[in-house]
Amino acid sequence: MDLLTSARVKPSRLIVGLMSGTSADGIDACLCRIKGFGVQTAAEIEHFSSLKYPETLKHMITSDLNNLGLEDIARLNFFLGNLLAQAALKCIEEAGYAIWEIDAISSHGQTLIHLPDCHHRVLPIPATLQIGDISVIAQLTGILTIGDFRPADMAQGGQGAPLVPYADFVMFRHDDLGKIVQNIGGISNLTYLPPSCSLDDVIAFDTGPGNMVIDATINLLTKGNLSMDTDGEIANSGTVNREFLSHLLSSDYFYKPPPKSTGRELFGIQYTQRIIGEYKGFIQKQGVVWDIKEHFKDIVATVSELTVQTIVYSYKTWVAPRGPIDQVILGGGGAYNLYLVRRLKEELESMDPNIQVLTHEDIGIPNTAKEALAFCILGNEVIGLKPNNVPSATGAQKPVILGKVAFP
Amino acid sequence: MDLLTSARVKPSRLIVGLMSGTSADGIDACLCRIKGFGVQTAAEIEHFSSLKYPETLKHMITSDLNNLGLEDIARLNFFLGNLLAQAALKCIEEAGYAIWEIDAISSHGQTLIHLPDCHHRVLPIPATLQIGDISVIAQLTGILTIGDFRPADMAQGGQGAPLVPYADFVMFRHDDLGKIVQNIGGISNLTYLPPSCSLDDVIAFDTGPGNMVIDATINLLTKGNLSMDTDGEIANSGTVNREFLSHLLSSDYFYKPPPKSTGRELFGIQYTQRIIGEYKGFIQKQGVVWDIKEHFKDIVATVSELTVQTIVYSYKTWVAPRGPIDQVILGGGGAYNLYLVRRLKEELESMDPNIQVLTHEDIGIPNTAKEALAFCILGNEVIGLKPNNVPSATGAQKPVILGKVAFP
Repeated sequence: MDLLTSARVKPSRLIVGLMSGTSADGIDACLCRIKGFGVQTAAEIEHFSSLKYPETLKHMITSDLNNLGLEDIARLNFFLGNLLAQAALKCIEEAGYAIWEIDAISSHGQTLIHLPDCHHRVLPIPATLQIGDISVIAQLTGILTIGDFRPADMAQGGQGAPLVPYADFVMFRHDDLGKIVQNIGGISNLTYLPPSCSLDDVIAFDTGPGNMVIDATINLLTKGNLSMDTDGEIANSGTVNREFLSHLLSSDYFYKPPPKSTGRELFGIQYTQRIIGEYKGFIQKQGVVWDIKEHFKDIVATVSELTVQTIVYSYKTWVAPRGPIDQVILGGGGAYNLYLVRRLKEELESMDPNIQVLTHEDIGIPNTAKEALAFCILGNEVIGLKPNNVPSATGAQKPVILGKVAFP
Repeated sequence: MDLLTSARVKPSRLIVGLMSGTSADGIDACLCRIKGFGVQTAAEIEHFSSLKYPETLKHMITSDLNNLGLEDIARLNFFLGNLLAQAALKCIEEAGYAIWEIDAISSHGQTLIHLPDCHHRVLPIPATLQIGDISVIAQLTGILTIGDFRPADMAQGGQGAPLVPYADFVMFRHDDLGKIVQNIGGISNLTYLPPSCSLDDVIAFDTGPGNMVIDATINLLTKGNLSMDTDGEIANSGTVNREFLSHLLSSDYFYKPPPKSTGRELFGIQYTQRIIGEYKGFIQKQGVVWDIKEHFKDIVATVSELTVQTIVYSYKTWVAPRGPIDQVILGGGGAYNLYLVRRLKEELESMDPNIQVLTHEDIGIPNTAKEALAFCILGNEVIGLKPNNVPSATGAQKPVILGKVAFP
């Protein structure tokens, strides 16, 4: 019996999920015991660990991306395959398992570029590139490896993103409760699971900025001395400029109905530079003298409130009409920003006092392990030969099995 | 039952092999019916067809290779996936089969770069990049797709090449006969299969230039008016300069014991420019006036003879000591060069009058279909979950299953 079949027929499987996010800090590895497939899936985290990228690598795949040539890209694919294998082996060893006990590795890979558009003079075709070769991982670990999930969805006309909503569907779908899984990463995105929903009922989209604009504002105004608002302390000590907030809320993106997705192109450093300039002009027009020390806290509070308001607007406009919201499960770095959490709770309380607001931790999932866990679940479906995309979220023509398989 | 398992247990399988060579002319597709695995394999070609690359694409992946950026490479991977799917569908339709009758597609992909060395300032790791995404092929055809064979061998310390010797072993291995499968492409390479050999006994290596130096010489001396020696007519009308030939034969590569491989780096356009200059100097030193018209035929004859002599030297030095040579099966463009074929036959006749010299056509395999057929056989082994590399030829530490699998 082959490794794929033997993993399929086992009562439970041990899978290592590997995630390397767009921040390119390193690799998160999550070792899970999984039973069943689809909505019957039961996943339990056994161990979580991470492996930092060397600085030279981080530099190459962030700042230096536009200077990468063919040779760099080819070698990076193998180099990362090596690191991903190391991350998996480290996680397995720390968890106290032997290699032969592990059924599969499921790896997202490192996104170098994601191009759901067709804007190219010679090759007008959507494309994406996740590197970290799965044959390299399989050979260096001796474990069946699954990965490279996005191309199949794109070949079916989808955006190749988001992928995590499938795991949300499998993990959090409830017969009686309507749930929102709210991730506040650089960008904020949500998965809505109506009570006893089928895959077709799942809604998932990017609500707008998460921490991206907050972090960039702090970074720009402190000239790099600070990079984030730890615990939301800065925002909590500032005052939201309501008028300027209304101006920020006038962006077209917020009013576009889902499915929709966004990123650095819309809410990155250029956006932040522009709105800081606008804020300056705004308060000067009111006869107030611009003083960076005085206005720093207020502008951070204002862009933090932008995240809150765009999330809440999305719930009221696109989620509430589709079904009840009984539970909101917060995740991502923003789940640790006490300003964001407090304000979200206040707003949800005023929408409906019965909405329960939880974090992933509250339901036994370490916040940092969530995405790696999601790839355990996506890989588990490949073993079960079940489709694992969410066409209603990605825009794909049909449910398909995302991912490639490499034998050790 | 999944597609991989159901293909495995069938009495015979229909597999489409796809090959896109380094000349980047287009895609060769070969539809095969295959029974069994390993040395029990029986393969029969049902149809062969090819699809030309658009000129813009050909330009991008040959002349423009060093100018490719990250976005180009990502989009090329999807664009080629599309073309490979089209090539497979065309072959299947021409052969009169329905999609559901085909068990698998097995694709080599287009090599953009192959780097078995470690010469990189930040990423000192061997790598290779074959594009034409197999998830795209699987989704657009609805057929199980296998491909990207080289990385697994390289992860095991191998060169990721050559791959075809495995197919030679499966197709041509004989209980009583010792056989050389001699490919004369741009580079000449051979697979030697001793009588009743096991995989460990297989020898495979590049003997030196095939048509590469001949073609480049003709192209340079006719300023691009001719690109090859059709039927070997030019060489047949010239006279080999024995003294200059001895000079050419002094290159180190020819005396290096196998396993070894070479390419454009050693015998490309720069090599050819250099030896043309040397030839000129050589005959001028003999007091003869250089006349391009007069010496053209002789220099073509001389570089053609270089191909013959390096092949024959390899047989005598590295093959004959390992076992009997009963049959030589010629393939590649050089199998149509009547000068090369005549001279090889003469040399082999003088080695041993009983050596039988055949072409692939003589044993029912169209010369042009050979490599695509080889990938049917490599893919068939993935279905059978059998190793399909030749460690004695690639230098890999052990036999492994090369290739990744994408489900439709």
